[in-house]
Amino acid sequence: MYDISMTIKKDMPVYKGKAEIRPELKVVRDYSDGDAHESEIKMNVHTGTHIDAPLHMLEDGEDSNIFLQQNPFYQAQLLDLSDIEEKITAADLKEYQIKNNVFLILKTRNSDKNYLEKTPEKFIYLAESGAKYLLEKNLQGIGIDSNGIERNQAEHPTHKKLLKNGVIILEGLRLNVVPAGDYVLLLSLLKIANSDGLPARAHLFDQGEIEEILKSYN
Amino acid sequence: MYDISMTIKKDMPVYKGKAEIRPELKVVRDYSDGDAHESEIKMNVHTGTHIDAPLHMLEDGEDSNIFLQQNPFYQAQLLDLSDIEEKITAADLKEYQIKNNVFLILKTRNSDKNYLEKTPEKFIYLAESGAKYLLEKNLQGIGIDSNGIERNQAEHPTHKKLLKNGVIILEGLRLNVVPAGDYVLLLSLLKIANSDGLPARAHLFDQGEIEEILKSYN
Repeated sequence: MYDISMTIKKDMPVYKGKAEIRPELKVVRDYSDGDAHESEIKMNVHTGTHIDAPLHMLEDGEDSNIFLQQNPFYQAQLLDLSDIEEKITAADLKEYQIKNNVFLILKTRNSDKNYLEKTPEKFIYLAESGAKYLLEKNLQGIGIDSNGIERNQAEHPTHKKLLKNGVIILEGLRLNVVPAGDYVLLLSLLKIANSDGLPARAHLFDQGEIEEILKSYN
Repeated sequence: MYDISMTIKKDMPVYKGKAEIRPELKVVRDYSDGDAHESEIKMNVHTGTHIDAPLHMLEDGEDSNIFLQQNPFYQAQLLDLSDIEEKITAADLKEYQIKNNVFLILKTRNSDKNYLEKTPEKFIYLAESGAKYLLEKNLQGIGIDSNGIERNQAEHPTHKKLLKNGVIILEGLRLNVVPAGDYVLLLSLLKIANSDGLPARAHLFDQGEIEEILKSYN
């Protein structure tokens, strides 16, 4: 089992390193003045591991309610694109045998230790040509190990192409220890109504691994 | 598959109906002044479906970090205690064959339509005697369909007994359509560091159901 979720804390990687979108965990009650310890979290819903609802980038797009009944299991394929600098293009992707209908996970140097912390504005992203090429694969979703799936493209064509075609965009993964291959993705979404994004918890399992875990319960 | 999570929205059931702990989803950017729609969530970490870290009720208790590596699957048993009024005692629980080592889920009239909304201060809870009895079963955790596992007991003995013994407390479930029986619980925790509670997404699956879903991926 690989936990591919970011830990939510003040000094985590955030989009382009912007201070104003760092999450805040505030103690609202503690043992100095009461008999319990209680905290409040304030965070942009696009913090850490999360999905984008179409509304995030499409003015007439649907909100998070379309995801609330979703089955949390997906057949997944992970590509190791750690050699790519700057952006992932159609030409890069054509080098791989990408399956149809899977949840595709893109591992890049964003997952290298401290890459996002050191150079938050230079994250590797999925270029418009790459997104266009992947539409041919009828993917369930695309996951990536940056805080955003794109930067540096006017009008956000990567987001728009994917969201218009019902491809789930999953951002903020941590993939440094996960090799390329086929997996089962477990993607559990926080059940927030009417949102433009949903914080999530994501795990990858080797094929057969979940069955082994469940077998021990019988 | 049963989604047993509460939907997070302003008018959801909150602990004793307190206005000050209602979650807020605030739009911080939209199409009137930009090219994206972005929201921020502010919520007590004990909102909706969530677990309590020991720190929540034990002054020297550990925080959420102890849960961050947890495997999300549990063998679960659901008891239908919908007839109980006020609180669940040891005598009530002795009527059932409760398995050892499972994640026990307590369904009560809290799950009835609008019960929590109408009488948020009168939720059914697990009495101290019930908690004490359940410690004999070496449970992984106990889930309940109220915003808190106890009320109306000085010093919070139900919480303290369970947390001291490493029993996970899962609150805020929605169980109205789920019959009594054996299940697999999928419990995905939002990965917040150093917190006294963790919002979660929870599903119950019939035994064999997950295997069927995964089989279709091969």
